[in-house]
Amino acid sequence: MISPEMKLAVQQLYRESGMVFRPDELEAIEYADFGLNDFEREGLSLIIYDNNERYCAKELVLLPGQICPEHRHPERNGQPGKQETFRCRKGSVDLFVEGPESGGRDQVPKGKESVYTVFHHIHLEPGQQFVISPNTKHWFKAGAEGAIVSEFSSSSDDASDIFTNPNIRRVEP
Amino acid sequence: MISPEMKLAVQQLYRESGMVFRPDELEAIEYADFGLNDFEREGLSLIIYDNNERYCAKELVLLPGQICPEHRHPERNGQPGKQETFRCRKGSVDLFVEGPESGGRDQVPKGKESVYTVFHHIHLEPGQQFVISPNTKHWFKAGAEGAIVSEFSSSSDDASDIFTNPNIRRVEP
Repeated sequence: MISPEMKLAVQQLYRESGMVFRPDELEAIEYADFGLNDFEREGLSLIIYDNNERYCAKELVLLPGQICPEHRHPERNGQPGKQETFRCRKGSVDLFVEGPESGGRDQVPKGKESVYTVFHHIHLEPGQQFVISPNTKHWFKAGAEGAIVSEFSSSSDDASDIFTNPNIRRVEP
Repeated sequence: MISPEMKLAVQQLYRESGMVFRPDELEAIEYADFGLNDFEREGLSLIIYDNNERYCAKELVLLPGQICPEHRHPERNGQPGKQETFRCRKGSVDLFVEGPESGGRDQVPKGKESVYTVFHHIHLEPGQQFVISPNTKHWFKAGAEGAIVSEFSSSSDDASDIFTNPNIRRVEP
């Protein structure tokens, strides 16, 4: 259950992003709570511009302090996993990926320590971007003003994502 | 020769786009005059976010009334040609592609009638987008306020583009 207030807060971030979204796009926002029923803490909102066999582009919104849980994009049909370029548009986002630990343990939701395992920290302000290699574990958390993040990537297939938390269902069966 | 005033006008459109660009990105803008030496009439400016073997993302700027000349993206190394999703962010753009004629002959630069041959017309306002199929001839012209257009696509290789105008050199040899 994602409250109407939460959805309005997400829509407001899209509206104030500096980019124009059509009414039908705002109507069709995908609000993902990953089956955890704690959207405000662990959740993500998406507008998908295009997703085809070759490339994908999305605009992501995170509410202040909201986290997209740790996951990776594995090889699929003999193709390398999804590669993603994240570009921060507004607000700020802290991204944590595989690599030498440089921060983030204090950002993990209480009680979720076992399902957040990568702590190489990249901080992105508007205009900054980072490429996440295929099949690399990552999670990300918005700063105090929330975040708007453009995602440019290879083809996207949410159903094949592997989350560290075994309780997560990204796509309804 | 692209005048400093033209370059400043392009930079201004990026700055007023509603999106944030880093100083080093504004420094590295690619100003393409296609070897025609008439940038104000036929030209295009680009910031490339990422271009790898799988996907590409760019932010295009066109000055008021500026045209990107007709071209197509052919098959390359046994792969289909580049596919592109154009999304208008600000201003407006008139896109002309292969298909039933619906407008644009009056938009062709004087004396260039022989090298503009496709007239299926799509008008894009902010928030509107269109997918250009691989190997399809297309050209586009900004409205009176110029245009900012996000391009999401498969991998980009300017050197393989085929322009209708044989005098065009997209990439210096």
